Amino acid sequence: MLVKMSIEEFSRVLASNAPAPGGGSVAALSGALGADLVAMVCNLSLGKESYEAFQDQISAALDKAQGLSKSLLESVDRDTEAFNGVMAAFKMPKGTEEEKSARREAIQRGYKDAIQSPLGIARRCLEVLELAESLLGKSNTNALSDLGVASQQAYAGLEGAVMNVKINIPSIKDEKFVAETRSEISSLLQKGSKVSQNVYKYVSENLG
Amino acid sequence: MLVKMSIEEFSRVLASNAPAPGGGSVAALSGALGADLVAMVCNLSLGKESYEAFQDQISAALDKAQGLSKSLLESVDRDTEAFNGVMAAFKMPKGTEEEKSARREAIQRGYKDAIQSPLGIARRCLEVLELAESLLGKSNTNALSDLGVASQQAYAGLEGAVMNVKINIPSIKDEKFVAETRSEISSLLQKGSKVSQNVYKYVSENLG
Repeated sequence: MLVKMSIEEFSRVLASNAPAPGGGSVAALSGALGADLVAMVCNLSLGKESYEAFQDQISAALDKAQGLSKSLLESVDRDTEAFNGVMAAFKMPKGTEEEKSARREAIQRGYKDAIQSPLGIARRCLEVLELAESLLGKSNTNALSDLGVASQQAYAGLEGAVMNVKINIPSIKDEKFVAETRSEISSLLQKGSKVSQNVYKYVSENLG
Repeated sequence: MLVKMSIEEFSRVLASNAPAPGGGSVAALSGALGADLVAMVCNLSLGKESYEAFQDQISAALDKAQGLSKSLLESVDRDTEAFNGVMAAFKMPKGTEEEKSARREAIQRGYKDAIQSPLGIARRCLEVLELAESLLGKSNTNALSDLGVASQQAYAGLEGAVMNVKINIPSIKDEKFVAETRSEISSLLQKGSKVSQNVYKYVSENLG
């Protein structure tokens, strides 16, 4: 498992000529680091008098951030496995017309399944961004730069995951599926960009 | 050492209420992951006929990416140590006027030293961005999304490091130092933003 590796070791495997892990796993990790920083900011704000009015919200945000981190860390490994189905389909026999047709269908199914991994990463990165935004002005100001970094990491994860969706779209022939996917990633990017810009602006103006 | 921790363990420590590691270490890690992805793209392009004309450039980029990854991973730990000097200075005696003055000077020196860590991370993230840009159209097209993710990670690292510079600027009284630092981070952000937008545009247009 990739997440059991030390950071040093993951870095070495990532840099190697092995095709996996690659950008998809890094996007998931980036989102997880963002979620962890949100959780840290919550932990540094809980039980503090200055943020007494927001304790319930902070506590709920902490729970959510921890769940998102766990799920995004799972995706670090899952993304690397996502294309095994496509690979297996490409290895199917293609002697007869029937075999060719079954292989084509399996490849298409494989791509559609595989795209779900980066799409899920992108959706959860947006959730991390929205959590970070929800804590502006309601959490420990000493950790304001951490909230900013959380947002940047989650947005980089969102954009990276979307790139990993896009690189596979040309292989999919189902036009309805392609249109729906394009529409969703465009909406995720638009929302994410708006939230990350809001957070960046607030943090920059309040850091000094 | 943080980089000897498993990814899972680092994630857990990051999310905790311990003030370190925080956003500075994550910014360094993000830059290192970007450098690793650049190295991976180089490794997937070396010895490939289609990129024969660029082999020397790719080989030089690989060396540089590996060096940047190593140095940014070192900063994951170094950034966490950066404020030890400030902390130590705050604990100095402040009984007499002389002690107070020595303490004030040590605190100022501590802040100036401490700011060098995120500033160095930001500079090296810009180098990662420029490396990624230099490989557009000259590296394995199958890894184009990885080059895109490399750039996003490096830019998030740059922005995150700059936030960690900014949060400490208000504590520094030397106006010349502050002006020079503000000018440098503004230049780093401007250059980084331009490069990352170039890479993002190229990758988005060529992914499908």
